[in-house]
Amino acid sequence: MSQSGRKTVRVALLGCGTVGGGVLRLLRDNGEFLFPRIGAPLEVTHVLVKNLDKPRVPECRREWLTTDPEVIFSDESVDVVVEVMGGEQPAQSYIERATRAGKAIVTANKLLIAKHGPNLVADAISKGVDLAFEASVGGGIPIIRTLREALSSDSVASVHAILNGTSNYILTRMRDAHLSFAAALKEAQELGYAEADPTLDVDGHDAAQKLIVMAMLAFGAKVETQGMVIEGIRALDETDFAFAERFGFTLKHLGIGHDRGDSVELRVHPALVRKTSVLANVDGVLNGMFVLGRALGPCLLVGRGAGDMPTAVSVVADLVDVARARLEGQSGLSTRGIQLKQRALLPQAEVVTRYYLRFDVGDHPGVVGSIASVLGAEGISIEQMVQEGRADGKGSAVPVCIITHASLEGAVRRALGAIESQTYMRGKPRLLRIEEV
Amino acid sequence: MSQSGRKTVRVALLGCGTVGGGVLRLLRDNGEFLFPRIGAPLEVTHVLVKNLDKPRVPECRREWLTTDPEVIFSDESVDVVVEVMGGEQPAQSYIERATRAGKAIVTANKLLIAKHGPNLVADAISKGVDLAFEASVGGGIPIIRTLREALSSDSVASVHAILNGTSNYILTRMRDAHLSFAAALKEAQELGYAEADPTLDVDGHDAAQKLIVMAMLAFGAKVETQGMVIEGIRALDETDFAFAERFGFTLKHLGIGHDRGDSVELRVHPALVRKTSVLANVDGVLNGMFVLGRALGPCLLVGRGAGDMPTAVSVVADLVDVARARLEGQSGLSTRGIQLKQRALLPQAEVVTRYYLRFDVGDHPGVVGSIASVLGAEGISIEQMVQEGRADGKGSAVPVCIITHASLEGAVRRALGAIESQTYMRGKPRLLRIEEV
Repeated sequence: MSQSGRKTVRVALLGCGTVGGGVLRLLRDNGEFLFPRIGAPLEVTHVLVKNLDKPRVPECRREWLTTDPEVIFSDESVDVVVEVMGGEQPAQSYIERATRAGKAIVTANKLLIAKHGPNLVADAISKGVDLAFEASVGGGIPIIRTLREALSSDSVASVHAILNGTSNYILTRMRDAHLSFAAALKEAQELGYAEADPTLDVDGHDAAQKLIVMAMLAFGAKVETQGMVIEGIRALDETDFAFAERFGFTLKHLGIGHDRGDSVELRVHPALVRKTSVLANVDGVLNGMFVLGRALGPCLLVGRGAGDMPTAVSVVADLVDVARARLEGQSGLSTRGIQLKQRALLPQAEVVTRYYLRFDVGDHPGVVGSIASVLGAEGISIEQMVQEGRADGKGSAVPVCIITHASLEGAVRRALGAIESQTYMRGKPRLLRIEEV
Repeated sequence: MSQSGRKTVRVALLGCGTVGGGVLRLLRDNGEFLFPRIGAPLEVTHVLVKNLDKPRVPECRREWLTTDPEVIFSDESVDVVVEVMGGEQPAQSYIERATRAGKAIVTANKLLIAKHGPNLVADAISKGVDLAFEASVGGGIPIIRTLREALSSDSVASVHAILNGTSNYILTRMRDAHLSFAAALKEAQELGYAEADPTLDVDGHDAAQKLIVMAMLAFGAKVETQGMVIEGIRALDETDFAFAERFGFTLKHLGIGHDRGDSVELRVHPALVRKTSVLANVDGVLNGMFVLGRALGPCLLVGRGAGDMPTAVSVVADLVDVARARLEGQSGLSTRGIQLKQRALLPQAEVVTRYYLRFDVGDHPGVVGSIASVLGAEGISIEQMVQEGRADGKGSAVPVCIITHASLEGAVRRALGAIESQTYMRGKPRLLRIEEV
């Protein structure tokens, strides 16, 4: 029974866009088997919207609609608030209000959890209410649940994740159809996989938010993310894909986290991943999270990272959990496993990984020797070096590509700085990281 | 608080082999963070063994050891029984005894859940105790939890899973190192990936048990598995790998399940999977489960399907869940979502998929035409046909390989029967299924 003795669990939705519509559809389609899984029926009582007159999905009944959030927070019969409006405000203040009113919360809001997760979790714990946010990362992929529950018995050493479907789609098409970034982006926009302004997706910010949420769960880390490496995919070109292919790699945009003891290493950037890696075939709009547990070893989760129905599956799965707990007078299960500690971010200069370095150079004798000796002076050891073709003699550039052994990023950046100023350089050196996963 | 008011959760282990040792190690290593995740410390009180004098892992204290199961079942202070002994008997009767005694149960026993899962679950539900079995399928991969919790809001259309690490290792080595089955098996045995008697693994029985457990959770299906297609990997040879490569496929041993409404389709066999599939790079001893949710779409989980520590991670994650519930006077969460209905197994003849057919034939004119017309007469349409090389003129066979469009297995088998009796045939036709996943 719920706290007020009713035999239903009453649910209010904040927002009724794509995900909200998916949630209502799933509740209608699957009500029959949700009932026994919860122990009582779910009853939608309110749907908060900005505009009462806007057309809604057919599953959304007119009598649920309200424009007044206070109607929801002050209604004691509302058990669970489902926040699917997105954005920072007013979502944050609504969740705080709902928490104070003792309601369980399910949210799909990655921005909010990335920016305010630690505070929202602490609030929920102190008020003894549930705060579930599976849908905030990776759409339908149960990554939060896996980190929180399946790995409750283990500690996580690292995560490597394809977190942005738009970028992954673009990279897949650049590789498979030999499209330029601009052409692949245009195609993604036409297919509805990319926004008119794709900045958030292709410049790595969306992936960064998801990585921060994953780091909360994976490492128990509350990290000041100032200075975090966040690089997108705009700069990649055909030559990078050709070299990646030649060396046996594929290019993926990754969010990477490592537990480094006192500090946490977090970075978001395109990376070379071996073609035999389990992440290599995570193509198109799919997302994939590779988690390395200290006892568990490798664990990969792949699925659709966005879209109305996959995201709705995660929202409603959370809803089933918190509704079930609510009926039994329990709460806080969704936050119980989360123990957060402030952790420093590993400075970028201290990152150690392998590097793909590309120098577009004028074709003079001695160039390769010059590059190699600058790298050597910084203690960077070269695994492979390829000079592709020769210039046409009219002053055009030829690419020299180098794969390094594991090196300190600070040293690599110093070397690139020194090489960049050489007269044989045409344009800036390219640095990409190589990840063994 | 536990039912008796104590502030610890008391745990008895049945068995202390590889997995049991891993569980004790994990409890010792991770006790510090398990405590807050559960809300109380776990305390091991008994470890049931057959031989008190056998050497044990250092984490196993001598005073815990007992050879008398009744000591455990009659001790009211024992909250959770962890069954890590394996095998059908006496494990089954011990779990029944523990259930009657009102203890929560965690088991890693796939044979038991595959054969008696529906009864054990029904018993647990009627006694109001937890029965958790994440570790029974896929070692450290949270597949049970994902099907039970993350997909509680959705229904599953199909599963395609690499469920046996031994077979997967052998197939990977046959493909990558061009080994014969016998040579790859020998290597797997030397590395400890295969038993001296590999029957259970390489003939598909282990995978079949895991598929049956997955079908319980994925489809809510209690299936009479008499007549289920269970084929292993012994018959595969170099020619199959060469043709698979040529057509853009890789060979994987799969457990496949489809919800077919009134019936359930379950089969276990080697299959051709596209090289671009997310399952294609699930190599070596890794397992991978691809689940297609009706609303969720595709979801893949990959990890180590066996081994002491990965399996122990799943056992202890279950232990955290049931211990937490026990402390709060809750129970049955681990079985609540499981609603089982008796479902018929789809007859093999009614399976519809694409086929790879290989005929080793004497090199006479008209052979290809003869094969094609028998297939045509059964309504089987050919997508590709390749006759590799020519015979050396001394009567040796040449392989003819055919890829069909989606066809009814009954028709394909009738055609193969007709072709098998032709005089140009050298040996039996080979049938492999092609799975789009």
